Amino acid sequence: MKNLQLNTEGKLKHFLSIDGLSKEILTEILDTAESFSSMSEKQVKKVPLLRGKTIVNLFFENSTRTRTTFELAATRLSADVLSINIATSATSKGESLLDTIRNLEAMHVDMFIVRHAISGAGHFIAQNTAPHISVINAGDGQHAHPTQAMLDMFTIRQYKHDFSQLKVAIIGDILHSRVARSQIQALNTLGCKEVRVIAPKTLLPSHVESLGVTAFNCIEEGLEDVDVIIMLRLQKERMTSALLPSEREYFKCFGLTEERLKLAKGNAIVMHPGPINRGVEIESSIADGPQSVILKQVSNGIIVRMAIMSLTLQNNGEA
Amino acid sequence: MKNLQLNTEGKLKHFLSIDGLSKEILTEILDTAESFSSMSEKQVKKVPLLRGKTIVNLFFENSTRTRTTFELAATRLSADVLSINIATSATSKGESLLDTIRNLEAMHVDMFIVRHAISGAGHFIAQNTAPHISVINAGDGQHAHPTQAMLDMFTIRQYKHDFSQLKVAIIGDILHSRVARSQIQALNTLGCKEVRVIAPKTLLPSHVESLGVTAFNCIEEGLEDVDVIIMLRLQKERMTSALLPSEREYFKCFGLTEERLKLAKGNAIVMHPGPINRGVEIESSIADGPQSVILKQVSNGIIVRMAIMSLTLQNNGEA
Amino acid sequence: MKNLQLNTEGKLKHFLSIDGLSKEILTEILDTAESFSSMSEKQVKKVPLLRGKTIVNLFFENSTRTRTTFELAATRLSADVLSINIATSATSKGESLLDTIRNLEAMHVDMFIVRHAISGAGHFIAQNTAPHISVINAGDGQHAHPTQAMLDMFTIRQYKHDFSQLKVAIIGDILHSRVARSQIQALNTLGCKEVRVIAPKTLLPSHVESLGVTAFNCIEEGLEDVDVIIMLRLQKERMTSALLPSEREYFKCFGLTEERLKLAKGNAIVMHPGPINRGVEIESSIADGPQSVILKQVSNGIIVRMAIMSLTLQNNGEA
Repeated sequence: MKNLQLNTEGKLKHFLSIDGLSKEILTEILDTAESFSSMSEKQVKKVPLLRGKTIVNLFFENSTRTRTTFELAATRLSADVLSINIATSATSKGESLLDTIRNLEAMHVDMFIVRHAISGAGHFIAQNTAPHISVINAGDGQHAHPTQAMLDMFTIRQYKHDFSQLKVAIIGDILHSRVARSQIQALNTLGCKEVRVIAPKTLLPSHVESLGVTAFNCIEEGLEDVDVIIMLRLQKERMTSALLPSEREYFKCFGLTEERLKLAKGNAIVMHPGPINRGVEIESSIADGPQSVILKQVSNGIIVRMAIMSLTLQNNGEA
Repeated sequence: MKNLQLNTEGKLKHFLSIDGLSKEILTEILDTAESFSSMSEKQVKKVPLLRGKTIVNLFFENSTRTRTTFELAATRLSADVLSINIATSATSKGESLLDTIRNLEAMHVDMFIVRHAISGAGHFIAQNTAPHISVINAGDGQHAHPTQAMLDMFTIRQYKHDFSQLKVAIIGDILHSRVARSQIQALNTLGCKEVRVIAPKTLLPSHVESLGVTAFNCIEEGLEDVDVIIMLRLQKERMTSALLPSEREYFKCFGLTEERLKLAKGNAIVMHPGPINRGVEIESSIADGPQSVILKQVSNGIIVRMAIMSLTLQNNGEA
Repeated sequence: MKNLQLNTEGKLKHFLSIDGLSKEILTEILDTAESFSSMSEKQVKKVPLLRGKTIVNLFFENSTRTRTTFELAATRLSADVLSINIATSATSKGESLLDTIRNLEAMHVDMFIVRHAISGAGHFIAQNTAPHISVINAGDGQHAHPTQAMLDMFTIRQYKHDFSQLKVAIIGDILHSRVARSQIQALNTLGCKEVRVIAPKTLLPSHVESLGVTAFNCIEEGLEDVDVIIMLRLQKERMTSALLPSEREYFKCFGLTEERLKLAKGNAIVMHPGPINRGVEIESSIADGPQSVILKQVSNGIIVRMAIMSLTLQNNGEA
């Protein structure tokens, strides 16, 4: 089956999932992002790469952080951004998603950035949209959040350079996390030595090892000797569904404390997709401490998204 | 009485209603739009015609589609767009519409795009605003929606070229439709051979023939031999007011089906202002079928609005 | 103690309050604004001074007028504007203000425009943000609204030229007004001859004279012979808290009527920060009359904010 994400020459034209992408493509994204990295320091933080292109933000779920970084990325590439307020849009008048897409296509837009509560929404749109339009998945249900995974990979490479020697631990609600799913795929594709997941049994998928990870239920064991610690955000909504005990109980068992951090390598970095719950999944002093690269992830989010947006549009033009 | 829409040289400076505009002015709009039509295919879809101009979106009623196409039209003319969120604006603090207008004028804006539930809101603003500001009516009550009518005329001309030989049928709630009212005026001004309206008696204005149309209560009779079929959107709100039977009943009597479509000319085109209610006013297969030009209307909406915006501002500068 | 608003060379890098700023700095703002004043008349109302800069609108309180003028000011300086919708942002997911600021910093933004219900919010952000970022207070609690005060000073200078001979009366709810507080400081710093406040006793701060004003409880006495009359907006919310009698009662005692206006100098100007309550604090005919400069204030709001934005960013770059 043809990979929906690639054009006829095997280059990236949609970015929907890490699944099915080669090490070469992921590395091209990281290298392209790196070429943008000096830009943030410049007086004029803009390049005219996407001038005259129209990028549509289609966010069916709220997200200030992700929406904002996509908007800034587009603006810094000189594109025009159209944000559709779904709540007041025609879809709320009963128009189908497909009809909304068809209408936006007819307005000669160039890219959809899609966040949706239903897994596969981005794929569905990519399958059904006009050939010249690129689709980027900004998070779909519990399926994937590939731009978050790529900014995390960029940050890891920035600090650790070579994936092949790395032990990485992902801690938190692996079962429901689209971020974790994409991170695991990206780390394995980039040749990471060992990917660990650390969570209570209720928050691990069954047969989790088939994803290419080692599972730990005890944080002390899982953290031992790792180079990279990735904390997931605790979705407080889960609490009520009896999958989790209280916040205090969770922190006691799976929170990242100074003491536990010492179990990792001395130069281990600590990551978190944000927004953080201080004192719930991570001790405040670690979030602000010297090993934290959490804000670096935010900065990298913009240049990685610039890379993905410019690569997909460029490859779509060649398709 | 002087036509509020024209400057001292008789050129368009506001665009409030088709009423009172000559065939020459309507044709100038269509020709100007045509000059923009190659733009959508270009890599950089922008012209600097309105650079430095500030366009204010004053939408007192929600409308994603219309607001979005105006915003895209302005952006592609390189204008800056200011969208006033009426719900949280000073008008909600009890400021009068006139005071809101005066304040925006003082900010040196150049154009108001107005949608309002009250008929005549655009006229009122045009009458009371500073002379250098152009006002465009984006739909006022049940009165007029002239930019929709002009994009429809553009689409008809694109497919049928010569209005003088055309039979056009408009089907649906004529009584409450500002779209229909503007379409009827535009078709007659452009010299259309025959304009038909098809609706149940409860949804036709009294003395409808005085508008220059032939009225039909039977869709089969009305569709016979027409070149253009314009469906109106069924406002579901009307159902409750007992003006209409159920959706199913409506579709049975006035829905556009494949069978009924055969009564029109073989090369008849099918139009709809959107968003469509599939299976209520139009059969899904027709909306997506070869005779449908519904999405072409959406594309044309942008270039027609670009034409109207650039013509009015240009003529206002000369006034 | 070092003034947070100034860089090491004593130049303005944040604009949080009139308090602590010298006559020279206020005058520099007014002069810079004046250099922008011819721009509004031009065909292309843009200068590339802040091209590539990202301005963040952080409005924790609603304000169409102030937010809009800041957005227009930024756009006319060619900056990019990012408006954070606080209601749907991460802060509503429980993220602290500081974490929100840290995240926006990491996105390499250049300026925060802050409106907040809590006094000192702007100072707090300026104290805690990255050194290259400028903070502008767009109104904090009952503390200060310094850009409003500066546009008022610009307007007064435009009509009256020399502050040293002026008698200015501020009328209304002085006690709760951040606008009045900033105006009083600015007028005194610029060397105004006499600043009067006119209000019922319940709406005057205790020891109000220590602010450098003369207090009047009788509007007729206070208006005598003044050059400038500044009306404050009556916050109708105060009514319910028993601080104020009815609207009608308020107008009877403190409303600006034609008759009372005659007590001031013949060429006195009438100002109001808007939105006005016609017939509550000001007679409608005065608001629209020859002595009113209310709409001129709105126009000046844009160029004064352009001046403050460009000065602070420029001085921050030099720091």
